[in-house]
Parts: sequence; structure tokens; C-alpha cells
Amino acid sequence: MSRIRAWAAPRAGADLAPFEYDPGPLGADEVEIAVESCGICHSDLSMLDNAWRRSAYPLVPGHEVVGRVVARGAAVPAAARALGQRVGVGWNASSCTHCAQCVAGDAHLCADGGETIVGRHGGFAERVRCQWAWATPLPEGVDAASAGPLFCAGVTVFSPIVEFGVKPTDRVAVVGIGGLGHLALGFLRAWGCEVTAFTSSASKHAEALALGAHRAVDSRDAGALKALAGAFDFVLVTVNVPLDWTALLRTLAPRGRLHFVGAVLEPLALPAFGLIGGQKQVSGSPMGRPATVAAMLDFCARHAIAPRVERFPMARVNAALAHLRAGKPRYRIVLDADFA
Amino acid sequence: MSRIRAWAAPRAGADLAPFEYDPGPLGADEVEIAVESCGICHSDLSMLDNAWRRSAYPLVPGHEVVGRVVARGAAVPAAARALGQRVGVGWNASSCTHCAQCVAGDAHLCADGGETIVGRHGGFAERVRCQWAWATPLPEGVDAASAGPLFCAGVTVFSPIVEFGVKPTDRVAVVGIGGLGHLALGFLRAWGCEVTAFTSSASKHAEALALGAHRAVDSRDAGALKALAGAFDFVLVTVNVPLDWTALLRTLAPRGRLHFVGAVLEPLALPAFGLIGGQKQVSGSPMGRPATVAAMLDFCARHAIAPRVERFPMARVNAALAHLRAGKPRYRIVLDADFA
Repeated sequence: MSRIRAWAAPRAGADLAPFEYDPGPLGADEVEIAVESCGICHSDLSMLDNAWRRSAYPLVPGHEVVGRVVARGAAVPAAARALGQRVGVGWNASSCTHCAQCVAGDAHLCADGGETIVGRHGGFAERVRCQWAWATPLPEGVDAASAGPLFCAGVTVFSPIVEFGVKPTDRVAVVGIGGLGHLALGFLRAWGCEVTAFTSSASKHAEALALGAHRAVDSRDAGALKALAGAFDFVLVTVNVPLDWTALLRTLAPRGRLHFVGAVLEPLALPAFGLIGGQKQVSGSPMGRPATVAAMLDFCARHAIAPRVERFPMARVNAALAHLRAGKPRYRIVLDADFA
Repeated sequence: MSRIRAWAAPRAGADLAPFEYDPGPLGADEVEIAVESCGICHSDLSMLDNAWRRSAYPLVPGHEVVGRVVARGAAVPAAARALGQRVGVGWNASSCTHCAQCVAGDAHLCADGGETIVGRHGGFAERVRCQWAWATPLPEGVDAASAGPLFCAGVTVFSPIVEFGVKPTDRVAVVGIGGLGHLALGFLRAWGCEVTAFTSSASKHAEALALGAHRAVDSRDAGALKALAGAFDFVLVTVNVPLDWTALLRTLAPRGRLHFVGAVLEPLALPAFGLIGGQKQVSGSPMGRPATVAAMLDFCARHAIAPRVERFPMARVNAALAHLRAGKPRYRIVLDADFA
């Protein structure tokens, strides 16, 4: 294969610029994918800014890829992924295959896993590579043009619904209606739940209802929170800023769960008594198992759930990143690859 | 029924003194129990000291009662509890029977439940009362003389093992080897788990092994904690003092759970990233469902698990309380009723 054209940040905080690199020989267990489109995630900003002290430059962001398999490594099972097959790739690029987590199907919890934009070059590019197991085929009925965000934002909120046994009879709430939260509303509505949206943006209330919520509540209204004491079986926090966690704990019914998928950097100050009295739980999760990615795609096809996206040509990536930094997307940005 | 002789604190912090009270008519759904023995729990000290701002005086402590039914209310089902039957009573004295929690069998989570020593008089007495459902019959094979602590300390640590699906293949740890922790070691060993005891008391290491642990570790040894990164599926915290919760989170394997039954008053400062990365959980629970109390007693009979107790005649209750305040019991105190 030839060199790969991409968009890369030369250093922390810099604009992206055209960049070409030699990907070297394709790994035996890898596929190479011709990128059709790629979503932008807040984690791309965090990595561009080196907020987690894990970035290496030049850095090619992009981990919500949809594209077609254009090369297969020698050890990719013939029946697993085919040339020309349309697949999606998210945050995870590889897993060791032999640790206890991998053997149990929990490849997303592999401690030696590779990440698409950490020490590798991501999907703001004409091609990208990953271990074949992390290139998930798109089923019939999933719109490829908007599917990219499902592979990071989508599975991040779908996985806890599966993993922690949310039931169709549950009353649930989603805190933060952005790239992750807007998908969570759709998933939970289709799951059969009673769904409440918490958002600090009054302009999103009506949209939250259209996205699947039965009601929308201002998450900064202490009185409204108080009135919802004991209301929820499952509260999914998708924001990455500190909120009044004690007040949110109180909105849980006995046996309720407060679940974090947002990378809140400040420690969560939680009262032990607030957990003990109602037998409550607090948890977190990253992305999802390969099996869950596939199950999510089937669920999306069956229930006509798709990310709501704004599209930019990839050549306008810097404008798109500025749009995201301004908190303006409704609700996710997808870049369309436009390399000549 | 006649007046009831008891031991009561006239005010916060005072020694207990002989006290008599008129219990009034027996509630239709209540049983009256002639106390044979009663354990002492740290919660008795907290209530005596009004540490939770919930105490009323004179206060008769005692919520680990074993005794025999001596009176039945008019509405107690004939087949449920018999005169002369030996029963035990713990923290819970009543539940509403009709809320969502009660209907689901989660009477321990009833928001309108009554507590044996809150607004009622407890088991440091010749007789005590509770709603019949909270007077659990002792099965054959449970030693009545030492059984009292099972009804509070015991079910408090047994319930989370049941509720949160601890498996015999799990690697587990118990933090704090006292009244609760020493029973947790026995339960978890009999459950089939690999069991680690965390204690700050070097003198308890050998005893922890005798109680069921496979190994004992100094909970204040930061290096030992670090070496146990990823070691446990379930860590049960029975202490009520702040520890390095972030370090304990790190001892959890992916999908692991850090569970609190100790009333730690300081907020738990937990890193969201520490939950998200390994899909970890933090939870709490109070006592247990009536069905779990009964299941625990059967389990104790089958596996010969009994509290290790030091016995005092009830007339020496003040000496016994001082012994507990000094942190000396190995591992629980039981008072034998000795009213003339």
C-alpha cells in the first residue's frame, strides 16, 4: 500500500494541516479501511490538546470511522471480514486476544489494547487500520453516511444499558444532551423505558422530546432535582463537568444506579450514607465489547436510530473542530473524506 | 402484658440505668419476644451518642435479639409465627407492607420502615416487640446463644454477597475484621471464594486466617495495596473511617465492585476515570431483605458459621459498652438477659 494522506496536528493546540505518512507493512491481524467518513468526538479535542498527557505529535485524530475494507492481513479469518465490506471503527483499535478479559469477550477492557488515535494515526485520513475484530460490519438498514458516531458516542452509551441490565420497565434519565446523550435518549426510548432528559440548555428541551425523551428537565434547577427524589432506576451521566452528584444520587429510587461515561476530572464526592440507605450504585464504563457494538448496530437498524449529524468536508476540518469547541453541533459532526 | 424492664440511657452519653416502661397494647401485626440474649453493635453506640441526630431518650439500645415469641398480635398469620418459637430480630422492626419495595420483597428498603431502637425500645430488655415479618425463626443447627449478631452484623455483610451476585469463582477482600468483617470472612470462604482480609491490626492476621481468609494484608501498607492492583472482583468495606478509596479502587479487577456497609461519614472522593476504565462499580447496602435473613440462617447452619462472641450478663451492660468503645471485642459482644 502507498503512503496515507491525512490531517494532523503538528503540536498541541495547533490547527490541523495536511500530512502524509508511510503506514508500513499491514499487521497480520489487521485490516486497512478506505475512510468514507469520520465523526468528531470530544476525545479528539482532548487528545489534540494533550489534556490526558497521552498525545504524540503529529497527531491524526478521528475514531468514528466508516469505510470499506481495502486490505486484509495474512491472519484475518477468511469468513470474518471481506474486501469491500463496509465497516466502522471506534476508539479501540486492537486487543491482545489472550488476557482474561479478551477470552471472556470483554476485549474493551483489555489492559494491553490499542487505541485508534493513541500511538497510531486515526481516521481524519484517506485510510486507517485496525485489528479486524474492531472493524465491525455495518448491517443492512444502518445509514452509512451518519453511522460514524455510533462507533464511539453510540456504543459508549449503549454498552451500560446492556451491561448493567437496564429493563424496559425502568425509569431512566440522561444527563447532558449532546453527542452521547442524544443517542442515549433514542436507545432508551426504543428500549421501552420512561425517559427523562436533563440539560442545562433550554433550547434543547423540545429537541430532547423529539429525540425520545418523555420530558426534559433543567439540570441546574435544584428545585426540579429535589422534586424528582427517588424517581429513577438508572441515571446516565454523559457530561464531563462537575454537577451536584449528591443531588443526583437522591433522584435514584432504591436499587438505582448513577452511571458515568463522561470523563469528569474532578473526584466525585459521594456520601456513603447516600449509597447505603437505598442500596444504590455508582459505576462507569468505557466504550463496549465487540459483541455489543454489533448488537447496537442491529438495534439501530430495527429501531431506525441514527446519529443526528452536521456534515463538513474533511478539508474543512479546522472549521469543524472550532464548531465543536464552541459547543454548537446538533448533535455530532461527521467529516466526509474528500481527498482528491 | 405487664411493664417491661430494660436498660436505658437517660440522655446522650450517659451510662445505662435500669428502666421500666409500659409497652401499651400489642400491635395487631406484632409479636412480643422474651429476650434471651442481645448483641451489641456499633450502631448502638452511635444511637447512644446521638451521632446521627436521630436519638430520643430514654433510649433502650439493642437490635441483635434472640428470644422466644410470648405474644402474638391479632393479625399475625397463624402459620407464620408460633408462641414459644425462637426468633431473632435485627435493625428493622417494621415495614409498611404496601410500597413498591415491600411488594417486591425489599422490605429492608421500605421508606416508612420502623427501626428497633429509633422511636422504639430495643433489646437490652426482658422483652421486645416487632412486626412479625422481622422476627425470623432460627432453624435447626444455628446456635441460639451466639446467633444475635447475625441479625444485624451478619445480614449486613451477607446481603451484598447475595444482592450483587458474588460468585464462588470470585476473588474477594474484606476491609476491617471486626464484628461485621469476621462474619464476612466466614460467609465468603463458605461461598467458595478466594478470600483476603485487610486489617490494620497485626494481631488479627492469624485470626483472620482461622476465620476463613486465605491471606491477611495490612490495610495501611500502601505498597501492599499497590501490589494487589487488579486483584479483586469484590471488596467489602466494613469500616466506618476514611481510607484511601482510590487505592482500593485500583485493587479491583475489571468489572470489580467496591461495596460499602460501613457508615463512613466523610464523602467518598472517587475518580470517575477510576470507574470508567475498568467498568467498575461502587455501591452500598443496609441490612437485608427478610428472605435474605432466612437464607443466611440456613447457610450458617449448613456451614457451621457462627459469630465469635464475648458474653456479658446484661446487668454488666455498661462494662460491655466500655469494652466495645475500646475496640477490644473479639469479635462481638452478646449480653445474656438476667432480669430476676
